[in-house]
Amino acid sequence: MLQSIPSKLDIMTSHERIKPYINRTPVLSSDKINELCGCEVFFKCENLQKIGAFKARGGLNAALSLDKSLIEKGLCTHSSGNHAQAVALAAKLLHVKAYIVMPSNAPKPKVNGVLSLGAELIFCEPTLEARENGVKKIIEKTGAVFIHPFDNYDVIAGQATASKELLEEQPDLDAILAPVGGGGLLSGTGLTAKYFSKKAKVYAGEPEGAADAVLSFKSGKVEKAPFINTVADGLLTNLSEKTLEIIRDTVRDILLVNDEEIMAALKLVFENLKIIIEPSCAVPLAALIKNKEVFKNQQVGIILSGGNVDLSKLTF
Amino acid sequence: MLQSIPSKLDIMTSHERIKPYINRTPVLSSDKINELCGCEVFFKCENLQKIGAFKARGGLNAALSLDKSLIEKGLCTHSSGNHAQAVALAAKLLHVKAYIVMPSNAPKPKVNGVLSLGAELIFCEPTLEARENGVKKIIEKTGAVFIHPFDNYDVIAGQATASKELLEEQPDLDAILAPVGGGGLLSGTGLTAKYFSKKAKVYAGEPEGAADAVLSFKSGKVEKAPFINTVADGLLTNLSEKTLEIIRDTVRDILLVNDEEIMAALKLVFENLKIIIEPSCAVPLAALIKNKEVFKNQQVGIILSGGNVDLSKLTF
Repeated sequence: MLQSIPSKLDIMTSHERIKPYINRTPVLSSDKINELCGCEVFFKCENLQKIGAFKARGGLNAALSLDKSLIEKGLCTHSSGNHAQAVALAAKLLHVKAYIVMPSNAPKPKVNGVLSLGAELIFCEPTLEARENGVKKIIEKTGAVFIHPFDNYDVIAGQATASKELLEEQPDLDAILAPVGGGGLLSGTGLTAKYFSKKAKVYAGEPEGAADAVLSFKSGKVEKAPFINTVADGLLTNLSEKTLEIIRDTVRDILLVNDEEIMAALKLVFENLKIIIEPSCAVPLAALIKNKEVFKNQQVGIILSGGNVDLSKLTF
Repeated sequence: MLQSIPSKLDIMTSHERIKPYINRTPVLSSDKINELCGCEVFFKCENLQKIGAFKARGGLNAALSLDKSLIEKGLCTHSSGNHAQAVALAAKLLHVKAYIVMPSNAPKPKVNGVLSLGAELIFCEPTLEARENGVKKIIEKTGAVFIHPFDNYDVIAGQATASKELLEEQPDLDAILAPVGGGGLLSGTGLTAKYFSKKAKVYAGEPEGAADAVLSFKSGKVEKAPFINTVADGLLTNLSEKTLEIIRDTVRDILLVNDEEIMAALKLVFENLKIIIEPSCAVPLAALIKNKEVFKNQQVGIILSGGNVDLSKLTF
């Protein structure tokens, strides 16, 4: 269990630890998207990861880093969906129980995903406070070990392996874009670029309707979003102390986009890459398209974070 | 230009010829689909191929096999969509003109795909006769070279490379399933299994609403479908003499499915593999699910043929 910011070796070790259990996801590209963006874009398809999201990496790494004796009473977490599935998957692989506190408005495919992995589901009000109280009660009752969705160095080291694989295939990237919610993926991506690339700068895309990270990035303190109203349901949480510190050190900028731009980017991915992504996952591409001049003629990597979308709610 | 049934060496040569221009598409799998099917299924994702379909392989192979002096007046073909895009792509790479005769009811994404590749588009009535007449007129007028969508040994050898790549990654497959329209992909898959696998048996899925191949397979003559009515718009054509001969020699069985089964399989792929496929592409998985007992506990490959679907027409 890591007690400080993951080192290069920590990320390499984490990668070896989770490799047997995760998909080596493909890297896709599209001539039409390249043309539209004015640069070469390489999409790391974590929507094609186990449980349909990069969160499998962090959840598995954190669970597998714990001593077996510690986890025999089970794992628990709170999450709007993808991290919940990651912890449920880890518990299943380790043959222990999983207790998941989920907001009552979590998307149906994510709820079904958790249930189908055999986890015990506890619904709560869709606030951070209710989620944290829910987890507290579970721990008192069961003795299960809590795995935080992002304020956890092992989770961060796990998420870092997505961009590590991308750089193994495309070592000459000038930039890497990731979405930012709690900052687990973004801080991991920042560390990976720092350790494994000579030149790649890391940028985040963030929804205007959950614009906490951009404020925290500037002030240096964990800030709340002025308001919450966005289709990107996976990016609603604030940063944590741990993720903010790494992001301030390793990320170049955080770029804001609105829901219309997010949905246009989502459509572009559906139509040209022929893959299914959730709205949160379209945020970095929307940010790239909005800031074309920054990335002109560059080689740009984008982490496509997840594909757990309620298809019945999408219209084109 | 091949004058007889492609040999093992012909398929290997074809693969090397087209490799620089095609995507090495990923092979995906899903624990949930495996569970549901009672076997291990490996999906070769040709929906993630250039132009969104396996047809890029055959079209490019046929065009690149022709002497440069032969094609300076351009390439032409008739197609409901994916082969049209393949020929348009080949013409673009070879810097010659492409003339495409398309039925007036071709799906919009396929029409747009052809136009965006710079081809000249000629619409015709949605009958085979109208398509063939359209091509005849083009050849008389322009001197362009016709590339048939499937009654062409170079096209067949190109399509064969999809299952060749699949077998390179999964050499122990017990069975491979492909959809059947004109039979280019199916005959290529049959040849590949014969040449490159010790045990893989090849099966086709065919829509009940375009059930010509199953009749031809039995009678040994090219038959027409009793009626045409299916969502699988890419599988409407009859076999040809060339494809039928190979299919009779190399394919184990042709399995019929109805539109409801096709759309259920399509939904399963969207939700679990997180990729976009067109209805024609869901036919082999529907056939597998309908005939589970045939494939029980086996390792099964499925060629996912294409992803060019009009998303505005899909509802879940």
